Amino acid sequence: MAADTDIAATPQPPYYAVIFTSTRTPGDDGYGAMAARMMKMAAEQPGFLGVETARDGVGITVSYWRNLEDIANWKRVAEHREAQRNGREKWYAAFKTRIAKVERDYGFER
Amino acid sequence: MAADTDIAATPQPPYYAVIFTSTRTPGDDGYGAMAARMMKMAAEQPGFLGVETARDGVGITVSYWRNLEDIANWKRVAEHREAQRNGREKWYAAFKTRIAKVERDYGFER
Repeated sequence: MAADTDIAATPQPPYYAVIFTSTRTPGDDGYGAMAARMMKMAAEQPGFLGVETARDGVGITVSYWRNLEDIANWKRVAEHREAQRNGREKWYAAFKTRIAKVERDYGFER
Repeated sequence: MAADTDIAATPQPPYYAVIFTSTRTPGDDGYGAMAARMMKMAAEQPGFLGVETARDGVGITVSYWRNLEDIANWKRVAEHREAQRNGREKWYAAFKTRIAKVERDYGFER
């Protein structure tokens, strides 16, 4: 399982979101450890603003970034590339990645 | 619980995403029925392109729309406004809504 997350404390827009939606193949096969490791590594990258993740059938991980260059740099980190390769080879039945510019946000806290 | 979803079959970008992240108050208190009803109603609105949802501690629901006007119209639908009001009054401990323009996407299917 990915680490538990809460609602990300992102700054004022504009900023970017990477919406990663996936369905898994059966079994763990190293997936849980990789997911936890990638969450930790992402948080250490320049321009990282936060992440939210949940899985319940479909898995949705939304990471937030300062700009497109930060997203491109994270995609190229060697250990992350290896995770992407293993994702296609064994962990994911299907996935979709969407790069989106957050233009507006609002919220509520009790 | 919200209805099970899979990866949304969205068209070529650009289009819009509404990323709704929330944490719940304890108990159901009509939440499950409302969530299922809102998923069904959203899918009937003009400009709706798809939805993905998962809850596992934090809940993430991403709905996809043709443009900002479609999103604004859905926000104003009477029964949806009632759900928003009840969300603030009883169902959500906290939430954040982010409106984002999807600029690029790519995916994989086994």
